[in-house]
Amino acid sequence: MRVELLTIGDELLLGDTINGNAAWMGRRLAESGIEVTRSVVVGDELDLIIAAVDEALGRADAVITTGGLGPTYDDLTRDALAKAAGVALIRDPTLERRLRARVAAADRPLAPMALRMAEVPEGAGLLGNSAGSAPGLRVALPGGVAYALPGVPFEMRTIMNEVVIPELVERAGAPQVARRTLRTAGVWESVIATRLAEVEALDGIKLAYLPSTGEVKIRITASGPDAVQRLSGAEELTRDLLGTLVYGTEDETLAGVVHRLLIERGRTVAAAESLTGGLIGAELTAVPGASKTYAGGMITYSTEMKHTLLGVPDDLLREHGAVHPDVAAAMAAGVRDRLEASYGVAVTGVAGPEPQDGHPVGTLYISVAGPGNEPTVISPRLTVPGASAEVRNVIRRLTVVHALELLRRDILGLDAEHGAGESEEDREEKG
Amino acid sequence: MRVELLTIGDELLLGDTINGNAAWMGRRLAESGIEVTRSVVVGDELDLIIAAVDEALGRADAVITTGGLGPTYDDLTRDALAKAAGVALIRDPTLERRLRARVAAADRPLAPMALRMAEVPEGAGLLGNSAGSAPGLRVALPGGVAYALPGVPFEMRTIMNEVVIPELVERAGAPQVARRTLRTAGVWESVIATRLAEVEALDGIKLAYLPSTGEVKIRITASGPDAVQRLSGAEELTRDLLGTLVYGTEDETLAGVVHRLLIERGRTVAAAESLTGGLIGAELTAVPGASKTYAGGMITYSTEMKHTLLGVPDDLLREHGAVHPDVAAAMAAGVRDRLEASYGVAVTGVAGPEPQDGHPVGTLYISVAGPGNEPTVISPRLTVPGASAEVRNVIRRLTVVHALELLRRDILGLDAEHGAGESEEDREEKG
Repeated sequence: MRVELLTIGDELLLGDTINGNAAWMGRRLAESGIEVTRSVVVGDELDLIIAAVDEALGRADAVITTGGLGPTYDDLTRDALAKAAGVALIRDPTLERRLRARVAAADRPLAPMALRMAEVPEGAGLLGNSAGSAPGLRVALPGGVAYALPGVPFEMRTIMNEVVIPELVERAGAPQVARRTLRTAGVWESVIATRLAEVEALDGIKLAYLPSTGEVKIRITASGPDAVQRLSGAEELTRDLLGTLVYGTEDETLAGVVHRLLIERGRTVAAAESLTGGLIGAELTAVPGASKTYAGGMITYSTEMKHTLLGVPDDLLREHGAVHPDVAAAMAAGVRDRLEASYGVAVTGVAGPEPQDGHPVGTLYISVAGPGNEPTVISPRLTVPGASAEVRNVIRRLTVVHALELLRRDILGLDAEHGAGESEEDREEKG
Repeated sequence: MRVELLTIGDELLLGDTINGNAAWMGRRLAESGIEVTRSVVVGDELDLIIAAVDEALGRADAVITTGGLGPTYDDLTRDALAKAAGVALIRDPTLERRLRARVAAADRPLAPMALRMAEVPEGAGLLGNSAGSAPGLRVALPGGVAYALPGVPFEMRTIMNEVVIPELVERAGAPQVARRTLRTAGVWESVIATRLAEVEALDGIKLAYLPSTGEVKIRITASGPDAVQRLSGAEELTRDLLGTLVYGTEDETLAGVVHRLLIERGRTVAAAESLTGGLIGAELTAVPGASKTYAGGMITYSTEMKHTLLGVPDDLLREHGAVHPDVAAAMAAGVRDRLEASYGVAVTGVAGPEPQDGHPVGTLYISVAGPGNEPTVISPRLTVPGASAEVRNVIRRLTVVHALELLRRDILGLDAEHGAGESEEDREEKG
C-alpha cells in the first residue's frame, strides 16, 4: 500500500510556512505500517494541482492532499479533484445549511464566497470535520483514491486519525513492520552506535539514529511476519546495552520524564537560569500538571542579580566572575532554598557571541542541588561550529538538555555521566 | 527561470525531521526573484532519486537537491546524478587530500567509507564548502542543471548564498518582482485586511496575509518592469493605513524590536511570569546583546511565590486568587523594583487544561509598569478551539506575543490597543 502526500499552497513554496503537516502525516502513516513514497508541494494553480494528483496516482495507490479547501479564490482543491474525476461540482444542501447556521451563531454576515465550502465533487465522500468549516473529501479517480484534507493542522489531524488512517490500514492488511523509539540525552551518537553493534547484527532489525540538539533518538524497526516479537527482543537487548542512557520512549520529553519522577517522589524543582533566559522553566512548565512539580524560577541574567536574588556570595563573584562551578552550585542551592523546592537546578555559562570574563563561548557549568545534599556540578564540553547567531541559540538549547538530564540522573541517584556535547563530526542535523 | 527543489532522505518522508531546508530555500529564492514551482521529497533509493531529478528537469530549468552527500551506504546523490548524466564517478585527488588532512587533524582514523565523499560525477563542478566535509555539485543534465547540496542546514545555506543563488539570479536576468514584508502582532487578520482594501486595488500589487500564533505578516508583492517603484508606493500606503499596528519588517522579531527601543532609550526590562513559565525571558534573551536591556526575571508559578518573591499583597491574593488585573499590576511593579529595571512586564492567567479559581481557560491579564508610572493592564480575549494539550501551548505563546506588544506600545507611549486574540474563524495556520 503506497501513499503519496500532496501539500497545496503558495506559502509553502515561498517558505512562509514550514511543512509541519507533511512531517506529521508521514510519521503517523509510518507508525501505522503505511509507506509514504513521495511528498510533493505545489502552489495554488489549478492545472499544476490536477497534474500532481494524476502523477501521484500513476505511482501510488492513494494520494492525500492538504490545503485549498477554504472559501477564497485561491482555494482550488475541490475544483481540481472534480476535474480530475471528470465530474461536476455540486452544492450540498446539508453542508450549506450547517455553514449558514454556524455563521449565524457567531453573529457574522455570510460572505457569498463562503458558500464555495458547501460545494462537493459529485459522488465524493465527505470526511466529517467536527473541528472546522469544510469537510474533507474522498474522491475515486482512475489511478486510485484521493483524500483531500484541510490545511489547518488540528483539523487535518482529526480527520487523519478518525477516518483516513483507519481506512488505509484496513486496505493495507496486517502490518509487516513494527517500530520502537528510545530516547537519550547528552550522549554522542557515535558512543551509542558503538554500543549497539550487536543489535545492528540481528536479523530483520534496522536501527536509525535521529540526532537533534543534544539528544539522540534510536528507532528500532523490525520487519517480517514476526515483527512484533523481533522488535521485543531487539528492544530488550538495546536497553541492556545502553542501560541508564535511555531516558524515555516514543514522544516522551526529558521535561515530561523529570515531571513524572518528581510526582512519583512527591518532590519539586526550582530553576536558576542565566544564559538560558527562561528556557528551562518554559520546558518544565510545558508539561501539563507542572504546577505540582515546578516551584518557580529566577532568571538572574546579570552577575549582580545572582547575588541580590540568589545569595551567591559577593566575594565569590568578585574573584571569579559569574562563570564558575562554585557560582553554579551556589545558584542551585540558592534557588532551591528561596523557592522552598526539593531540588534546585542552575546554569551559568557563555552563549556568545562574545567571550565573558575571559571564558570562551561554550563554557558551561550546570549544577543540581538535591534535598539536603551538596550540589553536583558538571561542565559539558561544547564545540559548535557556525555563525554567531546560530551558535548562541544552539548553546542555549544544549544547556537546557544537559541541565534536565543532570536533574533526571540526580533524582534517580545515578552518576552525573555525560558523553560531552556536540562536535562538528557528530552534528548531523538534516533539514 | 523555474526551479524545483528535491529533498532527499527517508527521515523526511517518515516525519522524523520537518523540512526546514526547503522552506528556507523557497524563501531565499523568492526574495531573489526566482520562482520555485514544485518541492518534492523522496527517500534514499537510487532509482527514485534519478526519476525525480529527470522529471523535475522535464518541467523546470534547474533542480536543487539537498541530502545524500554523506559517506554512508544510504547517501546516493552522487551516484544518482552520475547515472542521470551518463558519466562515471571518479575520485578527485584534491578532495581526497583535504579529507585525509581534516580527519588527521581531528586525530581520528579514516573510515574507508568516508572516501566516498571524495568521489565526483565526471565533469561536475564543485561548489566549495568551507563549512563541512563534502562539496556541493553542479551537474549538467539533458533537461537543465542540477545543483546538489549537503543536507546540514548551515552548510546548505552557505553554498546557496555564496554560489547557487548568485548563479541563478545571473541566469534569470533582472527580477521583475519586488517584495516587502510588514509585521503586526496582537491584531486580527480581518481587521488588517479591511484596512488595506485600497492597497489590494493597486495595479501590479498583490497582498498575502501570513498569520502565525498571535502575529500577522503582510507580504506586499509588486510585479512588472517598475516593480521596485510600485512596491515603494504600496508600502507607503500600507503604512499610512496601518499606522502603529506595524511593529517591524522582514525578519525582525517583536523581542528584537523591544530590545532596540530599550537600547535607544537606555532602558531595561524585567519580566514576572506565571503561565508562560519563562518563555518571555527566553524570547527577550534570544536577542544578541540582551544583557544590556533584560535585567532578569522571576517565574512565580504558584500563588504563594507571587507574594514571597514579588511582594504581591497577601490579602489581594486571598480575596481574588492569582488571576486578577490587580495581581498582574502588582507583579509588574514588583519585578521592576526588585530587579531595578526601568520596565516590568507581568502575566497571569489560565493556560489550561483546567480552569483556575473559577476562571475559564484563556483568561489572561498582562501588565506593564513603566518608569515611575502606574501599571497598564490589558485582558486580551482568547478563544482557542482544539484539544487540551494544544490549547495550553497556544495560549502560552499568545500570551508572550501580547505581552511583548504591550511592552512595545508602552515604551513608544502608544495606547494599549489590541485587536483581541485568535478566534476560530481567524485561525489560519497552514502546514
